[in-house]
Amino acid sequence: MTVVDVRIELKKGVADPEGSNTKKTLESLGFKGIDSVRTVKVFEITLDAPAEEAKKHAEEMCRQLLANPVIQKYSVVVR
Amino acid sequence: MTVVDVRIELKKGVADPEGSNTKKTLESLGFKGIDSVRTVKVFEITLDAPAEEAKKHAEEMCRQLLANPVIQKYSVVVR
Repeated sequence: MTVVDVRIELKKGVADPEGSNTKKTLESLGFKGIDSVRTVKVFEITLDAPAEEAKKHAEEMCRQLLANPVIQKYSVVVR
Repeated sequence: MTVVDVRIELKKGVADPEGSNTKKTLESLGFKGIDSVRTVKVFEITLDAPAEEAKKHAEEMCRQLLANPVIQKYSVVVR
């Protein structure tokens, strides 16, 4: 069994309203020195395959389903 | 500037409908050998503080706002 983390994040320049609202709320709670908050989606996928193969499968999953290449980029890390 | 990854995941035993539906959809696309898919939320926070302090601030943010301790657990990693 291999566990891979598929990390889906917004491309640079794409607005992240959830992140910017979270930043505002943290500041309203009194937190200082926050430069930015960005949200990232991670799918933690457990696959019945060796590490190298699992990584390839996960990348194919991103292309076919998990990521929207217009606004998102993805990376796969074997844990 | 320190970048921290705040990782919010569901506690064991808490249903993850988004994860299980993603698993079903991947299987319907022909992917085999998927044992489980769990969704994780990550806040990538850039803080104007040294690493040790940034980590403490981020943990306090989880306690006050980012995580729901009833169903979620959090971890903070300095990148």
